[in-house]
Amino acid sequence: MDTAGLNTDRVNHDIRSWIDSLRSGDVRTLARAISTVENRAPGWSELLKAVFPHSGRARVIGLTGAPGAGKSTLVDQLARLYRNTRNPHSSRKERGLNGAPDENYTVGIVAVDPTSPYTGGAILGDRIRMQEHFADPGIYIRSMATRGSLGGLARTTADVTTVLDASGRDIILIETVGVGQDEVDIVRLADITVVILVPGMGDDVQTIKAGIMEIADIFVINKSDREGAERVEREIRALQSLALRHDGWTPPIVKTVASDGTGVEELAAAIADYEAYLQKENLALKKRVENWQERLVEMLRDVMLEKARAQFKDGALTRLAEEVAEYKRDPYTLVEEIAAHVKNT
Amino acid sequence: MDTAGLNTDRVNHDIRSWIDSLRSGDVRTLARAISTVENRAPGWSELLKAVFPHSGRARVIGLTGAPGAGKSTLVDQLARLYRNTRNPHSSRKERGLNGAPDENYTVGIVAVDPTSPYTGGAILGDRIRMQEHFADPGIYIRSMATRGSLGGLARTTADVTTVLDASGRDIILIETVGVGQDEVDIVRLADITVVILVPGMGDDVQTIKAGIMEIADIFVINKSDREGAERVEREIRALQSLALRHDGWTPPIVKTVASDGTGVEELAAAIADYEAYLQKENLALKKRVENWQERLVEMLRDVMLEKARAQFKDGALTRLAEEVAEYKRDPYTLVEEIAAHVKNT
Repeated sequence: MDTAGLNTDRVNHDIRSWIDSLRSGDVRTLARAISTVENRAPGWSELLKAVFPHSGRARVIGLTGAPGAGKSTLVDQLARLYRNTRNPHSSRKERGLNGAPDENYTVGIVAVDPTSPYTGGAILGDRIRMQEHFADPGIYIRSMATRGSLGGLARTTADVTTVLDASGRDIILIETVGVGQDEVDIVRLADITVVILVPGMGDDVQTIKAGIMEIADIFVINKSDREGAERVEREIRALQSLALRHDGWTPPIVKTVASDGTGVEELAAAIADYEAYLQKENLALKKRVENWQERLVEMLRDVMLEKARAQFKDGALTRLAEEVAEYKRDPYTLVEEIAAHVKNT
Repeated sequence: MDTAGLNTDRVNHDIRSWIDSLRSGDVRTLARAISTVENRAPGWSELLKAVFPHSGRARVIGLTGAPGAGKSTLVDQLARLYRNTRNPHSSRKERGLNGAPDENYTVGIVAVDPTSPYTGGAILGDRIRMQEHFADPGIYIRSMATRGSLGGLARTTADVTTVLDASGRDIILIETVGVGQDEVDIVRLADITVVILVPGMGDDVQTIKAGIMEIADIFVINKSDREGAERVEREIRALQSLALRHDGWTPPIVKTVASDGTGVEELAAAIADYEAYLQKENLALKKRVENWQERLVEMLRDVMLEKARAQFKDGALTRLAEEVAEYKRDPYTLVEEIAAHVKNT
């Protein structure tokens, strides 16, 4: 993995040729740009400012489900399908594997596992396998694990998605484990959210029901050749009858067997249907505005936090923590006092 | 549940009699204080400032484990045990149920379920049952569920613990589900962390191994009369041989059957052993200093977030989000500009 940051001077002074390289589809430039953003390496902020105006063209699809639901395999199949489909809006000049202009959809995959590093190894292994298997520059795959506890993962995923978007990927698939709050934050930035269930995980499905109802635009019942698929479908239908969505969309249920490709075309069709619905009802922009309202506040919080941390340099944090730990100083008043003195830089 | 805030004037002007009421063990005052802090009701910040100097006496024990590991039952048993044990340091004047001075350990329980509201109903039900069952003012139980996505749950749990501590509870048991990042943040504030495993959950144990090794001061194998208890013990021992703790402590493994009380005395003894070790090695303060270093930064972040939100009043956030969503404005530069103008209030 390339973890070195981009040279800041180059970002600032040679930005045009650099952006051109990214937008031409150069995979090494893309990989370096993503590493820079993911690791907050020098120049990451300038990089995002420069690429942002070139983003906004990609269709961002979030896919989430419990461990073992077959997310990776389904994402794999969906990526293949898009790679074999001509993009009617393509104006791409670069050549594909066979030397002909690659006018098919290009795909970026971001695989996020907030439970890493605990299970990160396995997922990373999956990804390396996929990477080797495809050997197709039209599919770019990136795995991401947990970064600290300050809610940084959703933010970083959003930033990486912006880079992939600006690089000209037509479709971005964001794959994340489970349906906890972290996952909700991550899939919230997608235009379209797919929730993957499997038969025979009774209690787990029960547990995440309420969360699923809120975020799913499309349900997939994967491994639908297993016993219990009908029951899962009935349960989803029952829940849908209890809680109608504000936007009037009823999430369809697609049955798949990702391991042999069954139902993958139907899933792509359901995604296209929902996309058409978003366009028709002018909901796509509305959804993005809502997302940006939350993201702007979170971004501002992060910038403010950086300013806050800067208040604590030269061992001041340790000394203050000692005073609080010895109950000599009340932390609530202390923090207010520090906040009042954060410099406007 | 009492969700009304404390009257701010009363907090500010009559603070001494109010603190006296809290410290005398009055359960209604305690319940109102916790509600005020949990709901960030008016006066919450003043309340925490006022109670903080009276905190720091309680022993805070965090207990975590997968759903179904029997956490509630074990916490229940441990609470009973402490309630039947005389606290040699007690200077308590108030009378217990039988009219005699209650010189036994008093207990506060904070039950946290970050997966709520999805499963919150069941846990709350458990708690209500426990509350009825005990009918002992010497045990105070509070359930808490998820509050938003900005990492507020660990912070709120810490604040509620401070209130319980200041109210004079000798032992505070914090019970939380699973071992994700949220749970790590929550149990991190405990002086002593107990990780509860059960036989027959093979894959789940594997998944959370790395996280467990880092946070456990004591392991409990609950439902240890089930098949597979020996295997779980061997796995823990094998992991311990791979990763020694920096502080030289080897977390003991206690086998329990919480439903009939087996092993609960041994668990209390293991907790006392670790506490003695912390004291002997002067590690208790060191641990609290480390915790406060992180908490101070997080508290400062929260204060800064409030300032950040205040920048976005009067519909400005929606207008800016629209400009960003239409790609007319780069959010990264925008956020920096706003941050530079945050007022020092």
